Amino acid sequence: MDEPLIILNFKTYREVEGARAMELARICERVASETGITIAVCPPAIELSRIASEVEIPVLSQHADISRSDPRTGSVTIPGIKATGAVGTLINHSERRLNLADIEDLVRGCREAGLVSIVCTNNVSTSLAAALTGPDYIAMEPPELIGGDISVTSADPGIVKGTVVGISRVSPEVKVLTGAGVKTGEDVRVALELGTVGVLLASGVVKASDPGKALISLCSGISK
Amino acid sequence: MDEPLIILNFKTYREVEGARAMELARICERVASETGITIAVCPPAIELSRIASEVEIPVLSQHADISRSDPRTGSVTIPGIKATGAVGTLINHSERRLNLADIEDLVRGCREAGLVSIVCTNNVSTSLAAALTGPDYIAMEPPELIGGDISVTSADPGIVKGTVVGISRVSPEVKVLTGAGVKTGEDVRVALELGTVGVLLASGVVKASDPGKALISLCSGISK
Amino acid sequence: MDEPLIILNFKTYREVEGARAMELARICERVASETGITIAVCPPAIELSRIASEVEIPVLSQHADISRSDPRTGSVTIPGIKATGAVGTLINHSERRLNLADIEDLVRGCREAGLVSIVCTNNVSTSLAAALTGPDYIAMEPPELIGGDISVTSADPGIVKGTVVGISRVSPEVKVLTGAGVKTGEDVRVALELGTVGVLLASGVVKASDPGKALISLCSGISK
Amino acid sequence: MDEPLIILNFKTYREVEGARAMELARICERVASETGITIAVCPPAIELSRIASEVEIPVLSQHADISRSDPRTGSVTIPGIKATGAVGTLINHSERRLNLADIEDLVRGCREAGLVSIVCTNNVSTSLAAALTGPDYIAMEPPELIGGDISVTSADPGIVKGTVVGISRVSPEVKVLTGAGVKTGEDVRVALELGTVGVLLASGVVKASDPGKALISLCSGISK
Repeated sequence: MDEPLIILNFKTYREVEGARAMELARICERVASETGITIAVCPPAIELSRIASEVEIPVLSQHADISRSDPRTGSVTIPGIKATGAVGTLINHSERRLNLADIEDLVRGCREAGLVSIVCTNNVSTSLAAALTGPDYIAMEPPELIGGDISVTSADPGIVKGTVVGISRVSPEVKVLTGAGVKTGEDVRVALELGTVGVLLASGVVKASDPGKALISLCSGISK
Repeated sequence: MDEPLIILNFKTYREVEGARAMELARICERVASETGITIAVCPPAIELSRIASEVEIPVLSQHADISRSDPRTGSVTIPGIKATGAVGTLINHSERRLNLADIEDLVRGCREAGLVSIVCTNNVSTSLAAALTGPDYIAMEPPELIGGDISVTSADPGIVKGTVVGISRVSPEVKVLTGAGVKTGEDVRVALELGTVGVLLASGVVKASDPGKALISLCSGISK
Repeated sequence: MDEPLIILNFKTYREVEGARAMELARICERVASETGITIAVCPPAIELSRIASEVEIPVLSQHADISRSDPRTGSVTIPGIKATGAVGTLINHSERRLNLADIEDLVRGCREAGLVSIVCTNNVSTSLAAALTGPDYIAMEPPELIGGDISVTSADPGIVKGTVVGISRVSPEVKVLTGAGVKTGEDVRVALELGTVGVLLASGVVKASDPGKALISLCSGISK
Repeated sequence: MDEPLIILNFKTYREVEGARAMELARICERVASETGITIAVCPPAIELSRIASEVEIPVLSQHADISRSDPRTGSVTIPGIKATGAVGTLINHSERRLNLADIEDLVRGCREAGLVSIVCTNNVSTSLAAALTGPDYIAMEPPELIGGDISVTSADPGIVKGTVVGISRVSPEVKVLTGAGVKTGEDVRVALELGTVGVLLASGVVKASDPGKALISLCSGISK
């Protein structure tokens, strides 16, 4: 995925049930095309294959359970994600936390499958720890700011900076995304200024009265 | 769903990754059409919407996490399942067990959403307990027989009979399905003879060298 | 355990850490002796053996993980509880919910070990379901009332009555306890009047400025 | 705790139920006294307080759930462990894995409470990740070797060495313990030679016909 990038986590909001997930993915596709900025989407699990097979922008799974094709009813596997045409997955989102051994196994599974891995973390210390498992990205999201109106870049720029600097020391090939509370183009601009390569957000677009307009506003924080 | 019925759980076998899930669903659709027997399919979570939107046979989710449209990254919600066009969901499969409060909440959520609920259980006692939460079906599957070559109808017909009789006493409107190890038309015939209204199976068809042939063989146990 | 009975769940409040757990157990022992009423205690897991080996009143575990003596680091086993001298265990407390198969297995494990089993539930439907696994007691505690100041007997006497009547139909040998929000002797009196054989409570005594006085007040609701 | 050290995880084996836990702790105490070598014990959760209050050797919890004194029925808290007189806890044992955020929170909780934290891990990559959360010790135990007869020091000395070297680079103040399959004095000797400061073991002593003799044999691998 080209950077800087905006990753939109659809979560399981009412606004993205059924056909509305595809509609939002199409809006993202259109804004990405108009602005030239990378916008990736994480639809609800049960919409993944359908959306991955139809849109031209990068599609990511919200979660993975296991790295292999084992029969596990109700689970999401790395080879299954790969086979949908999705390009990667979030791992360890704060609403779906995983144990450390599984995080490491899933990151390795992504690498072997040629999928992008984005490990979500909650503070500087867990970000550095997760970075040592070797994912492509760390998305740092203090849980108290998720779904709120204040971006982590305003509430506590120090922990974003601390994560970027810390990871550059222990695992320099891992890139950092800013999560939690991102709402405006200014939030995106500051996120990039702090050394992260993009943002991961949800409610700011999914719950917006005009998601396309909200996305364009976010894109305005990225100078092309 | 008309009864008797055959429910095919695709699990997350390698054989049903990506486009192969749709191929297997199409085979089920064809055999259902040819035989006139109800065949429902449970594709992997990430293939659910795509398959539900394309095939004419009943499609079920393998699992549900929550009954409402709450934002929960990586989860499967009842309203989300409904919105895909799927007609119901398995709940509490032995590979994805749920706590009792969640089983009851999900069964109620299915009822309110107009979805079919099938609660999987592991023995007579848990079957009767689960029946009291009011699902449409109980699918009794002794875990030691799942994925094996011996049907529960051969290994222990008494526990199938015990489940049917017990449920008819405590919650007579709940119907029973036979699970675990079903492989042949004879297994299906005995399952119906024991008072269950159909079967829930996975490997017997998914791993078969010719899934269509395996399905036709199963259907032969049902007299039309 | 003789009935009516008062069961005090110590939870893991600061007030019951270390030696304070024993002090509270001693207070319960004294009030039980003075009033002639059965008072059972559920100390924190890590205090169980110490308290069970020293007090004369019934001691229960707050939780059990597995029914057998399998090596499982950090878990609580039924044989392990038995060996401490405790007389039983809570199962499926709302703060430590278990899947249905485990509830059933633990209830059976208690029966085989000669331990009292108390399954905690959250509404009428789950109470009836859990009763069919055959425990000695069901303790019905609507989670929204736990830790609060309004007893379930005041907030919703209908669900207590509904649980008692429902269980008497489906599994008449199972007795019912009233949980959630019990604070006063009057709460206890109403709990017994509604057909339950006792109460399960925590904060009303553990957080009281004078736990002995709080217990005596509760006992006043029981006529001897 | 003085090093080198031997940590004995009692798990929940039948051999350590009830009074037998104290007997084994006394044997450890005697051998520690006779040999002058540090032997720490991790009794079953429900025996923790009793043993911590009676023996003179270091006692550790097998597990912790939360870092604060929140009311959580059936859980083990850091302040609760501290109040028993135990000196620390295992965290994230492979039989009780925790999510990354909880590992980090518990390690910090131990530090603030003055407790020793030992995070168990399953390979080099998770060891380095866990080390960045700042525990006192990492105990690396490949799960496939746990409970077996071949020590990790024989089966794969490279991953022990890799863990020691890797941690010395990213988090040099964190010490490493060798786990999984340790049985003999020679295993202990090699564990120390590879740069770890001690061993964590269970079945080799708990299941031994003569645990005292097994311990003395282990101690023979440590030159005083």
